[in-house]
Amino acid sequence: MTLAPEFALIARHFRPLAGQGGLDLSDDAALLTPPAGRELVLAADAMVAGVHFLEDDPAETIGRKLLRVNLSDLAAMGADPLAYLMTVALPRGTPDSWLEGFVAGLARDQAEYGLQVLGGDTVSTPGPVSLSLTILGTVPPGQALRRCGARPGDEIWVSGTIGDGALGLRAARGEIADPDGYLAGRYRLPRPRVALGRALRGLATACMDVSDGLVQDLGHLARASGCGAVIEALRVPLSAQAAGADLAMLLTGGDDYELLFALPPGAPHPCPGDTPITRIGHFTAGPPGVVVQDEAGQPMALSQQGWSHF
Amino acid sequence: MTLAPEFALIARHFRPLAGQGGLDLSDDAALLTPPAGRELVLAADAMVAGVHFLEDDPAETIGRKLLRVNLSDLAAMGADPLAYLMTVALPRGTPDSWLEGFVAGLARDQAEYGLQVLGGDTVSTPGPVSLSLTILGTVPPGQALRRCGARPGDEIWVSGTIGDGALGLRAARGEIADPDGYLAGRYRLPRPRVALGRALRGLATACMDVSDGLVQDLGHLARASGCGAVIEALRVPLSAQAAGADLAMLLTGGDDYELLFALPPGAPHPCPGDTPITRIGHFTAGPPGVVVQDEAGQPMALSQQGWSHF
Repeated sequence: MTLAPEFALIARHFRPLAGQGGLDLSDDAALLTPPAGRELVLAADAMVAGVHFLEDDPAETIGRKLLRVNLSDLAAMGADPLAYLMTVALPRGTPDSWLEGFVAGLARDQAEYGLQVLGGDTVSTPGPVSLSLTILGTVPPGQALRRCGARPGDEIWVSGTIGDGALGLRAARGEIADPDGYLAGRYRLPRPRVALGRALRGLATACMDVSDGLVQDLGHLARASGCGAVIEALRVPLSAQAAGADLAMLLTGGDDYELLFALPPGAPHPCPGDTPITRIGHFTAGPPGVVVQDEAGQPMALSQQGWSHF
Repeated sequence: MTLAPEFALIARHFRPLAGQGGLDLSDDAALLTPPAGRELVLAADAMVAGVHFLEDDPAETIGRKLLRVNLSDLAAMGADPLAYLMTVALPRGTPDSWLEGFVAGLARDQAEYGLQVLGGDTVSTPGPVSLSLTILGTVPPGQALRRCGARPGDEIWVSGTIGDGALGLRAARGEIADPDGYLAGRYRLPRPRVALGRALRGLATACMDVSDGLVQDLGHLARASGCGAVIEALRVPLSAQAAGADLAMLLTGGDDYELLFALPPGAPHPCPGDTPITRIGHFTAGPPGVVVQDEAGQPMALSQQGWSHF
């Protein structure tokens, strides 16, 4: 009895990824014994070809980006990665080589971040490749980082550099020069700050990841915490490759996947694995919202705050 | 500070669905304290407009079908529903009324099946509506129903009626008569057998849901259990509306979402809530595979075994 093509595809490409809990992807669902004494942290992100990645991006980085944008959500909560489920909608005729690359990317990052795949679904679509991933992590009870705990006077910190993702999209499209490929690499392969998120447990009063633009995302943090927020634009860390680009664009562009967090004055500044972190401003007792100050301390006018799908 | 359209959409349509664990959908991820002393059961299914539902199906039944196909996976494992995460890829310009209907359907079935939404993602797509849902349920440890436990001599049982989903697709397309709307209703709104699945814990030696055609799905059960399987075609339960349709099509069509399970001879036959169940054959010591016998006891030739996406 031969397998229908759909099941042969799952057996060939996805089964080798599955761990014990995935029951070899051969049951209707997976089983998971929750780690004792931990809270579960769950998030789901979708990615569509032509929207979240380029149709001609390498399949391997597409798989890795799918995992990593979800890992970034776990990092933002201070969670340890555990497992994931994934659905994949593919145009008919998607070549085997594409699936091989996609799965190789997932396998590589599963190993790097200590995750197993528990299950999912593979379907056809008349549209572009559409991917969805649900990730599970864990935290000690009550220790998840939230967006709502920042207080006036807390310092605003950010990891890594800001704006490379937005520039990287342009570089990947060939619209700007990118001699060393650094910018396109930042767009195609985010670096989820899992170790930093973990180190911020018990220290940060609020945390989130920057995925839709620094200013817009800081606005979410400010609103959730009921604070105002002031950023000093010149303090925002930029890569050498981003230096000289339009600052307003860098501050509002998407796809950074850095952590944005609040630390009370005088708190320790963790930097696990030498993750660079930079203080860029502070929270105020003002109305929820974000003020970006230029070098003269004057509010900068921004034509938009960040990225929206609609 | 006004919200970007994407976040306004989430706040307006999806936040009212979210329970406590979803943190009002305003954090990067959700928190869930796993129920003590239970194993988690997890599954994910995707649905694409034009493939799994019709573009002009009512938005309310699309939302309910998305939940129900996933609930059917929990039913197949004998699990109690707990929560879900969902990603929604929508064409730009999707009318608010569509989202209102979609969310109303989800709200209705959340209440009916005792589920809460924990989180998700809403993105735009240049393609058709693409939906993905990850569902979580629970079972007492070790009591999940699996596909691999059927033994030669066990009886093969199925719930409800078979073939209505495949006929219902034709009816919904206007290709066949459907005076009372029963068949289209069966395609648009599966009835996940959650109560039956729960009642089969400790009784059924194997179980799965029939989603890709009875014969193909029974083949999966037979392979997983290392048994042969014989169905007597005339025993397969058909609705009055399906009577007279091509039997081979009914036995291989998709979208039934009934439970297919193995009971040892002499085991009790649970029928919670009067869920009808019917014995349709038995497992054998023969090679893994399915034989469908006609009224004369002769093997029927089937041009295909079931539905595949590729």
